[in-house]
Amino acid sequence: MKISCSKNDLLNGVQTVYKAVPSKTTMTILECILIEAAGGDIKLTANDTELGIETYIKGNVNEEGSICIDARMFQEIVRKLPDNEVSIETEDNTQALIICEKAKFNISCRSSEEFCYLPDLEKVNPLIISQYSLKEVVRQTIFSIAPESEPNKMMTGELFEIKGNDLRVAALDGHRLSIRNIELRNEYEDKRVIVPGKTLNEVIKIISGDTDKDINIYFTKNHIIFEFDRTTVVSRLLEGKYFNIDQMLTSDYETKFNINKKVFTECIERALLLVKEGDKKPLSIDVTDENIAVSISSAQGSMEEDIDINKTGKDVKMGFNPKFIVDALRVIDEENVDFYIVNAKAPCFIRDDEKKYIYLILPVNTR
Amino acid sequence: MKISCSKNDLLNGVQTVYKAVPSKTTMTILECILIEAAGGDIKLTANDTELGIETYIKGNVNEEGSICIDARMFQEIVRKLPDNEVSIETEDNTQALIICEKAKFNISCRSSEEFCYLPDLEKVNPLIISQYSLKEVVRQTIFSIAPESEPNKMMTGELFEIKGNDLRVAALDGHRLSIRNIELRNEYEDKRVIVPGKTLNEVIKIISGDTDKDINIYFTKNHIIFEFDRTTVVSRLLEGKYFNIDQMLTSDYETKFNINKKVFTECIERALLLVKEGDKKPLSIDVTDENIAVSISSAQGSMEEDIDINKTGKDVKMGFNPKFIVDALRVIDEENVDFYIVNAKAPCFIRDDEKKYIYLILPVNTR
Repeated sequence: MKISCSKNDLLNGVQTVYKAVPSKTTMTILECILIEAAGGDIKLTANDTELGIETYIKGNVNEEGSICIDARMFQEIVRKLPDNEVSIETEDNTQALIICEKAKFNISCRSSEEFCYLPDLEKVNPLIISQYSLKEVVRQTIFSIAPESEPNKMMTGELFEIKGNDLRVAALDGHRLSIRNIELRNEYEDKRVIVPGKTLNEVIKIISGDTDKDINIYFTKNHIIFEFDRTTVVSRLLEGKYFNIDQMLTSDYETKFNINKKVFTECIERALLLVKEGDKKPLSIDVTDENIAVSISSAQGSMEEDIDINKTGKDVKMGFNPKFIVDALRVIDEENVDFYIVNAKAPCFIRDDEKKYIYLILPVNTR
Repeated sequence: MKISCSKNDLLNGVQTVYKAVPSKTTMTILECILIEAAGGDIKLTANDTELGIETYIKGNVNEEGSICIDARMFQEIVRKLPDNEVSIETEDNTQALIICEKAKFNISCRSSEEFCYLPDLEKVNPLIISQYSLKEVVRQTIFSIAPESEPNKMMTGELFEIKGNDLRVAALDGHRLSIRNIELRNEYEDKRVIVPGKTLNEVIKIISGDTDKDINIYFTKNHIIFEFDRTTVVSRLLEGKYFNIDQMLTSDYETKFNINKKVFTECIERALLLVKEGDKKPLSIDVTDENIAVSISSAQGSMEEDIDINKTGKDVKMGFNPKFIVDALRVIDEENVDFYIVNAKAPCFIRDDEKKYIYLILPVNTR
């Protein structure tokens, strides 16, 4: 194989596929990036078997071929090369020579025959969405998935539910549920899949988030495929039935208040200073006619603060995990938000009138 | 005690003295900041017994007194307060009430009687130097002190040597020696002290580095005192005799070459990619008439690169720890630097004609 391309194109390509290189694995071939040069195209691929990414880069193919190079080493070398043309050549499957200006690197590599290639999937009827919308909708929900260590794997992914031209994205971890609804440009067949959180976290890092750039999303029985620019991301779907989230929602409430998001967020951030990592101190809120008294108490000390609100309905006192409220407030764009409370023992909802977003948070006992 | 001051003045003060709060200690009182309000002045102090910092902040003293507050908690709370007037009051020695706008914190505190006060030292005949000069001279040498774990404590500090109006600052770790010489505005008595590296690292973080702001440095038998703005830093000196560094220097050489600093630095940074942390692979240099061939080889692969130089004297081949060369090159401001080599087994010198700087690096065996 013999190829040449600009350092910047190569670096962008390597950094894109690098997101699919596992940080820990016993299969060392997965720690490699596959370079394939054929028919005038240079393609880079990485694959951790759950998530795979391939991207094409501009360049010249002087001799067709393919090779696997250790991803971490390759990325670091490319990053430190001068900003100029880079050539990569291999004579056999064991050594790659990387030349840029006067710098010459000889690094060991492996045969492409060992590589785990991406599955060859049929791509039909893509869902088309702007990179901006996908990035936003994921950012605004993904914080409430459960960590990878969660035994119920459903909670480590996000629900993507398509009905006509509505896309609903939801994430829940047993203590809270976050939902975003967006309108699609076209109508699609109904679909309900669970996408691994890890995949979405990586995809939103790669896509630019431009409003005028689209992303094509394909679904197969077991996979989701994201196609954009010159890049394809393939991920397994989580298998199983997602929770019945409609059952968790209600429009009833006995207390409703409107509060300034920034003021409330900063107040809770101060309260969080008194909570040590892993310590589960509840934030108490005492909602009365014109204000909400926020307080917290821990071994470190206590804190209280009053915030003006517009309230209708009953007075209520209840407790929350402060982190859950602040996580939701941080991803809401609106300046003021509405809280809906049924009673001190039922979930509280933060939602807008059009139900573009719904954040459900379970209360905690303050006794 | 009852005081009030602006959030920003308080935050700056807390962040300044925080540098003297030890990260690990069995004496919990050292983890506190002492607040003293007396005669209209508010003073903050932290002291880890080796290094102590005190600073005055603007504000009002409504009731004199003093108290110790946990430094980490206090710093985090102050940082998150609204940008407004902050009041701090204590009724006894166990609780402090911090109020800013509607936020009220109650945190536990301790009596000032438990605090380790800074020693009361006589300050005469200060050495006066600009904050800029001190910051530069320390930055340009301190990377070559030995780590705190080094048994020979002398190596963990920097030599400050004053002769007339010359200040020489030197640091060495057994493999390399870094020296900077600067001219002082005034003449002083001869002095030779060893300042702990930790102290210097903290001082250069606190001082602004302005060319038109001065810093007064006082020496006592066992201490060095830095006085600037409204802040005083007191540190113990390292006791003992420093190495005879003049004996290590020589003006003889058999090879001299002039090289572009940026080109050489970037080349070595690439070479370092092939060296894993803790692995001691030497960088080989082969100096011939018009260029230097730089190469390195490790289990990860090999790298070579030629760089143009201006050379006089003999050809020479030798090996270095690449990190040591790059550390020195990074703190040299000049675009091109001169290397002086006696032979492949003797130290190499990087120095300028006026000897403003001298960097000595021991070679390593490349066999």
